[in-house]
Order: sequence, then C-alpha cells, then structure tokens
Amino acid sequence: MTGPKIRVFVDQPLGPGQAVALDEARANYLFAVMRLGAGDAVHLFNGQDGEWRAEVAEAGRRRGIAVCADQTAPQGVPSDLWLLFSPVKKDRTNFIVEKAVELGAARLMPVSTRHMNSERLRTDKQQAHAVEAAEQCGATWVPVVEDLQPLDRLLAGWPEGRRLYWADEARAGAGGGWEAGSPGEPSAILIGPEGGFSDDERARLAARPFVTPVSLGPRILRAETAALAALTLWQARFGDWR
Amino acid sequence: MTGPKIRVFVDQPLGPGQAVALDEARANYLFAVMRLGAGDAVHLFNGQDGEWRAEVAEAGRRRGIAVCADQTAPQGVPSDLWLLFSPVKKDRTNFIVEKAVELGAARLMPVSTRHMNSERLRTDKQQAHAVEAAEQCGATWVPVVEDLQPLDRLLAGWPEGRRLYWADEARAGAGGGWEAGSPGEPSAILIGPEGGFSDDERARLAARPFVTPVSLGPRILRAETAALAALTLWQARFGDWR
Repeated sequence: MTGPKIRVFVDQPLGPGQAVALDEARANYLFAVMRLGAGDAVHLFNGQDGEWRAEVAEAGRRRGIAVCADQTAPQGVPSDLWLLFSPVKKDRTNFIVEKAVELGAARLMPVSTRHMNSERLRTDKQQAHAVEAAEQCGATWVPVVEDLQPLDRLLAGWPEGRRLYWADEARAGAGGGWEAGSPGEPSAILIGPEGGFSDDERARLAARPFVTPVSLGPRILRAETAALAALTLWQARFGDWR
Repeated sequence: MTGPKIRVFVDQPLGPGQAVALDEARANYLFAVMRLGAGDAVHLFNGQDGEWRAEVAEAGRRRGIAVCADQTAPQGVPSDLWLLFSPVKKDRTNFIVEKAVELGAARLMPVSTRHMNSERLRTDKQQAHAVEAAEQCGATWVPVVEDLQPLDRLLAGWPEGRRLYWADEARAGAGGGWEAGSPGEPSAILIGPEGGFSDDERARLAARPFVTPVSLGPRILRAETAALAALTLWQARFGDWR
C-alpha cells in the first residue's frame, strides 16, 4: 500500500491481536470504495485506545474482520474547547461540523437562536460527518455532536470556570478580546446565525460574566467563516497549535 | 427597507448624482430576487470610488437604473496579501475563493502543482464568486482571480520583497513560522493540493529565500481549511484584523 493512510473509526476495543468486526458501512468503504482485500493494512481508532494498524482478515460484501497488529499513535486528548453554533443552511452547517473537527474542537453544540436560519438539524447525520472528518484529519477522537438546544437554556446552566468567546459582529474592527483568555482554560466559542443575534440575545450575552466578546476583523463574515476563524485563533493562542 | 444592506458591485463610475446602468444579472437580482422597486435604496461599489447609497430610478425586467445619492463608505484598500492555491474539487475551490474574499486577500492565484486534484478552473466563474463574496462581506473592492498558472513559473518570477508563507504539511506540530513576518510586508500564502506537494516541489520551495514554512497545527487539514486558517492567522498578526 502506498498513498495516504486509510483510517476508520470503530466503536470497539482495540489492543494487541484484537479482532475487530467491520459493519456494512465500513466494509463497503474499505473493500468496495478503497478496494482493500485480505492482508491489506487499515488504521483503526475508537477514541480511547489510540490508533492501531490492523490487517484485514476477512473482506466480505457486508462485513469484514480486521486484526490489530501494533499501536501507531497514542490516544490523543482534544483541547477543552466547545463550539456553539446556530444552524445555517445544510451545506454550510456540514462545513462547520467538518471544519470544527479538523480544527480540534472537543464538543459541537448546535444552539437555537431567534434569527436562526434553519430549525432542522439531523444530529445523527452531523455526528457521521464528524466521524468522517476525524478519520480524514488524523485525530484519535471524535467530537460529540449534541442535539440542538436553546441558547438561553445552555447559558442558564453554564458550567463555572468555562470562558465563552462570543464572536460579536458588532465588534467588527474593534480588535481583540482574546487577550482575556489563557492556555488550558476550559473554553467555548459562540457563533451566531446569518441573521445575527437579536437585541435581547445580545443584551443577555453581554450581561453574563463568563462571556468575552471577540472581534473577527472589519468585514462581515458568514457564520461558517466566523466559526473557522475563531477556532483557528483560539488554537493558535491557547490550544494545540501553540 | 429594513434588513441587511443590499450591496451590488458595478463596473461603472460612482459619484454624486451619477446614474448607473444595471445589467440583466443585476436587474434580476435586485428586482426579481430581492424585490426592490423604484425609489428603493441599493448600495453600489466599484472598487475605486467607495460605497454609495443609490436610489432605484428604473426597475425593468432586463435592465434598470440607480442614481447615486451619497457615499456611505470610503474606498478601502485590502492588505497586500495574495493567496496561491492549487485547485481542489469544485465545491471546495468555490469555498476557498469565497472565504479568501471574506478574509481580505487582495489577489487569488490558482497554481498548478504535480498532485493537483483538478485541471480545470473556470476563471470567469471564480471571479463571479469573488464578486458575490465581496458584495456580501462589505468589502469595497473585489480581489482579482487570476488564470491558473504553473507554480514553478510563478516562483521563478517572484517579486522581490514579498514573503511567501508556505503551509507545509510536513511541519505539522512543529509550531510557528509566522514570527519571521511583519505587518505591512507584502505577503502571500501558498496552500497545496489535497495530495500535498511532490518531493521535487518541496525541495524547490525550501530552497527559495523568500519562502517561510508555517505550521497549521498537528492535524491534517484539508486544502480549504488550511487556506482559511492561514489567512486568519496572517490577518490577526499582520493585516487588517490587528
């Protein structure tokens, strides 16, 4: 095998000599799409046991078995960073989820807001996007995608000691905000819907002591651009890009 | 009119009392899609004369006229930042172009590389994407999208005094690289194709004195993620987000 490493997330224990059952979706991907066969290598991770090189032992149409050989990466731990975002159009929401995984968010929390663009969010589909993104980017964990919940309820039960960076479109050009944070601090980033936050929501956010408004430059960024830019700046300052 | 400002790029002079002809595409957008009519306000920019509030004087099916009232923003100048990128799949290339405009790149330069994913790039379509993105994000300029050119040829004629930040996937986790730059320095960012650069290309890049390799964290980023992240970090350090 040459070419990039083929990585698959499995929800099963991994360890020396461990046989791992591959379900229909994985069998289809590995054996039909990627054309692997018995004896070929595949890399497995489950979010707990690191990454393992495994050898395909059975390659069926609907199922397969791979047997773990050796650990190729230790289990990683994402930075303690949550992303709160308000669903936008489907493609752009998919994009937010994919990119948040690549950029190392630990938890993806869709929140409903007054001006949100979409009421519907298939958590299971978004979780599947997160798995694919983790397989592709080399992470050894998959961030959990939570069900949509009202922003106000989330704020009401906000955990002590976690800073919430609020990408506040009214701060365009005002600069900074990030200097309030520090590495290792439990953090979250809040991105609004395309229509922005309502005056009520803005007032309630501004009143919370754990909320830190941040600026993302002088132009009006789309929601997914704001999410990516904020995750990037946080990782470069406080996270695993340092 | 309430709601967000409707902005349209026009390739015509703008000034007090200036009548501006709106072509079929713009008439369709303003009068059919956005449902503006005579007397409604539209904001115009042309990349030279700032942004103007204009009033619709004629709203036809295939053409229209708007008359400039007053200037609502001075002409802005983008940071002196180019983005060199190797075309990827269509949707993701569209995304790179849209996001590069939002993030304030001045010039978009598709480059052909050994492992590039796509040979085709419709410059006219990408330029149209850039116009739409500028209309949406509030910029008063539209970055030029150049025709695809070979990376090697571009490097051979590289202008003196311009630093090229190279998002080098081999630096994953190596940290930094950005500290070599400074605000105001003419700059460019180079993002490779999904398949990465070839060994030859890597060697030639590494040998150029104007090339500064930078790291974008420990995970493998897709090309469009790398483009956005690098543009964000540059703007926050050296550009108009400071």
